Parts: sequence; structure tokens; C-alpha cells
Amino acid sequence: MITLTWKNDLLFEAVDAAGHKIPLDTTVADGGTEKGMAPIELLLAALAGCMAMDIVAILRKKGGRVKSFQMSVDGDRAADHPRRYLKIRCRIKGDGEYQRDDLERSFELSRDKFCSVLGTFRNPPQVEFTIE
Amino acid sequence: MITLTWKNDLLFEAVDAAGHKIPLDTTVADGGTEKGMAPIELLLAALAGCMAMDIVAILRKKGGRVKSFQMSVDGDRAADHPRRYLKIRCRIKGDGEYQRDDLERSFELSRDKFCSVLGTFRNPPQVEFTIE
Repeated sequence: MITLTWKNDLLFEAVDAAGHKIPLDTTVADGGTEKGMAPIELLLAALAGCMAMDIVAILRKKGGRVKSFQMSVDGDRAADHPRRYLKIRCRIKGDGEYQRDDLERSFELSRDKFCSVLGTFRNPPQVEFTIE
Repeated sequence: MITLTWKNDLLFEAVDAAGHKIPLDTTVADGGTEKGMAPIELLLAALAGCMAMDIVAILRKKGGRVKSFQMSVDGDRAADHPRRYLKIRCRIKGDGEYQRDDLERSFELSRDKFCSVLGTFRNPPQVEFTIE
């Protein structure tokens, strides 16, 4: 459960059930003050985070020792509204004491079985709205 | 562009091009230390943030004065891997000097035309991976 509260201009604060807070904002050109990450970028962070956690967790379960791990994600958006992502590109880079095959297998397990964010992209949920 | 870097355990840091940082983590039960929001919840925050920005921006363009605005989002997930969201529920609550019709119309414009996150859910992007 996420609760999002308006602060000022187009600055909002998202809070989860455990109290973790994230400021969300947009560019000055779009009426924001750039005090936080943009929601559409948060989508990329969600995908990167979900896969990276899977991959690092699986690598470690296989006995690997991760020394560094990075994932960069960007996307091409449609020119017309709603300017959805057409294509998302993910680059994965890791270093540590593990076999390259283990990294690749961990990635495949995340992509094909475990990643909840990718699974939601592949099979979109029903979204319901209530205006109080 | 989001760059996600592993810190320790299952704690990662996501950074956007402007330098906004978000810690991402998971529950102790799943091997994390709960030092940040979970990626799957970030997906809900992205949806809430995207729609809320649309709605508040449109309401203000219509001459409305927003005094408070809140959006809460939760979801039901599948029991089986990848435990994707089956259904997402959004509750919208606002107060200010505007007509109820204007709030409803602003919401509809976001839902049907402007929300990039919802647009991406409706028409999922192609996702490409490179392991360096």
C-alpha cells in the first residue's frame, strides 16, 4: 500500500506501509520544481530494483560472492500522449567471485520466472479507481 | 535513465540523471534489511505519482485551487511466481476550491489520455537486456 500526498506545486510524497518516503516531482518545464524523481522514471527504477534483487539473491544462493553489481535502464517513449514507453533497455554489469554462467542463469531466472515487475508488465493488472 | 547500484545485502540505490536517489530494499524474510521501499511497491508509487501530477496540474489549469490531494494505491498479487499484480486499486481524495466535476474530468483525462505509467501498463513495452 502506497499513500501519496500532495505537498506543493507538483511535488508529492509517496509513503509505504513501513514509512519509507520518496519525494516525486517533475521538470520545471512541466510545472514542477525537480525536487524528486519523476513517476515515469520510477517505473524504470522498479524494474531495475526487482531484477537486481533477484539476480543478486540467486547468485548468492548459488554460493557466489558479489563484489559489485549495477543495472542501468532507459527507455524510448512515444511522441504522442500518453507518451508510454515503447522500448526499455536494461544493461547489467556485475563483478565478484562467481562463474559468468551463474550470472546469466540468475538473470534468466529473474526474467523468466521471478521478477514481479516484469511479470506485471507482461500481463497487465486490472486497475480500479474510486474518487472519494 | 536510471542507474541502480548494489550497496549490501539486498539494499540498492537508484539514481536518475538529475541525481535524485532512492534506496530500494526488501523484507528481512526475503533477505533484505528493509532500508528502502520494495521495487514492487515502487510500481504503485509510479502509478499514483503520474496520475496525481496530471490531476493536480489539470485542476490548476482549470483555475481550481488545490488545498489537499491524496491518492492511495494497493494491489492484489498472484500467489505463484512471478507474483504479478492481478488487480490494483486506486483511491483519490482531494479538497480545494474547484467543482467536483472538474476533479472527475481531470481524473478522466489522466486515465484516458495523459498518464504515461497507465499507458505503459495498458500497452507493455518491449524490454531488451544486455549483460556486460
